[in-house]
Amino acid sequence: MKIRVDIMPKEGVLDPQGKAIGHALTSLGFEGVQDVRMGKSIILTLDETDPQKAESTATAMAQKILANMVIEDFKVTILQ
Amino acid sequence: MKIRVDIMPKEGVLDPQGKAIGHALTSLGFEGVQDVRMGKSIILTLDETDPQKAESTATAMAQKILANMVIEDFKVTILQ
Repeated sequence: MKIRVDIMPKEGVLDPQGKAIGHALTSLGFEGVQDVRMGKSIILTLDETDPQKAESTATAMAQKILANMVIEDFKVTILQ
Repeated sequence: MKIRVDIMPKEGVLDPQGKAIGHALTSLGFEGVQDVRMGKSIILTLDETDPQKAESTATAMAQKILANMVIEDFKVTILQ
């Protein structure tokens, strides 16, 4: 079973990578860029075949290791 | 208009970050992890209000700067 965990910096948390990308886009001629936020996307392939169990496993993984809960939010999506 | 650009390493391209996460998960007691792939997720807030134009702008940004087309694939999704 494939599961995607999207991890983004929380609202209000400074995102220097996103800022750098925003500046790069503007300096390369892309206009109208208001804001850029950059996060991580992790695709897990698990043996688990029960979607509910797979989702709760992925949530536990995100809380324990994948995301830094102080500064990041995450979202778990079942892909297949 | 908010647009998400998901960038993942192409199939077959080595993904050391993903491998490291996989090992970390297994060594911390999560069983049944077959594979882990790690990519980037970039959320752009653009002035553009026409979804089609915003999508084509985001695609151009991804091809020119955000993604390395040799080793990465990307997907553009309109959020709102």
